[in-house]
Amino acid sequence: MQKVLYIKTHKKEGLYDITKQAESFVEGSGVKQGLLNVYVQGATAAVMIQENWDESVQIDVINFLKKIIPHGVWQHDAQDDNGDSHLKAGLIGPQETIPIIDGKLGLSTWQNVFLCEFDGPRNERKIVMTIMGM
Amino acid sequence: MQKVLYIKTHKKEGLYDITKQAESFVEGSGVKQGLLNVYVQGATAAVMIQENWDESVQIDVINFLKKIIPHGVWQHDAQDDNGDSHLKAGLIGPQETIPIIDGKLGLSTWQNVFLCEFDGPRNERKIVMTIMGM
Amino acid sequence: MQKVLYIKTHKKEGLYDITKQAESFVEGSGVKQGLLNVYVQGATAAVMIQENWDESVQIDVINFLKKIIPHGVWQHDAQDDNGDSHLKAGLIGPQETIPIIDGKLGLSTWQNVFLCEFDGPRNERKIVMTIMGM
Repeated sequence: MQKVLYIKTHKKEGLYDITKQAESFVEGSGVKQGLLNVYVQGATAAVMIQENWDESVQIDVINFLKKIIPHGVWQHDAQDDNGDSHLKAGLIGPQETIPIIDGKLGLSTWQNVFLCEFDGPRNERKIVMTIMGM
Repeated sequence: MQKVLYIKTHKKEGLYDITKQAESFVEGSGVKQGLLNVYVQGATAAVMIQENWDESVQIDVINFLKKIIPHGVWQHDAQDDNGDSHLKAGLIGPQETIPIIDGKLGLSTWQNVFLCEFDGPRNERKIVMTIMGM
Repeated sequence: MQKVLYIKTHKKEGLYDITKQAESFVEGSGVKQGLLNVYVQGATAAVMIQENWDESVQIDVINFLKKIIPHGVWQHDAQDDNGDSHLKAGLIGPQETIPIIDGKLGLSTWQNVFLCEFDGPRNERKIVMTIMGM
């Protein structure tokens, strides 16, 4: 089964929690054991598993990446001025594959699934969710 | 098929080789071709494929991450004093998906599967291994 | 289905676009919906999804990693003088799992699949591609 999720992003950079959509897709699928693959299209976005107790870790992620990957010093900036966005996306990666356990998404209490926007705002980021059941 | 692996960690940070457990699960499954997904729950741990000739690379991994992600300078530290642990876990990521080839785990000679502990010691880190066969 | 791809690398470090081989494997498989896992063996290489408009982002990736992971300052250098290659490979990771949508690989226009060589040149890097269909 596959489901496409569209997320509107509002800022240049930010994390967007898509856990509820992923959990709901898994729970509605009837699959009891298997894998969920969450994949974002576009070479300036990524998918990260991270805590969502409050916004602090999300802000830390953006600030950390900005520190090690500054804006405006890359060869690709001559094309699009977004070399840093590409490097962040490639480093974090576009996908995570998560187990489905007893019909539910196998995250722990403090794990959430985030879309990472590194070159927004965008009217829609397209995320493809794929369930493989046993 | 799914199997849960519990690993006790002894230090604040360290890599724990879980290759034998992963290989044994694959070889006992009877699956000849497919994928093994290794996923650690908890937002301050990760899974990395790395060499295990001796401890040197494991020590280098911990020291490298400590250098680019120092302790004590993150917004999340106001909550739990472990902002660095979360950043390391998100950067490395909680999972790897590895091919099963001719009934065996498709690692090369110098590839091992490691649990990365970034906020230990913990009595148990829970790793979910999922096999998808053809 | 599984297919092994061998890539010859010509330099110490570089990105090699393997998108066409991955797409061709998917399109020839007859699988309409599922996942493609692309996995490189060897602990000094990796797989990254990245743009391939021109060479600029590829050069930026190599330069960025060189900056945060310098050569010659790691414990593992006492063994093989390639501690930096291992750290880069572990950080980027050996695999990506990509959706198959309507019989095609689910990359977006600006996403390509790259082998990352961090310790070349090598006569052959072995990449295992695995398709899981529904």
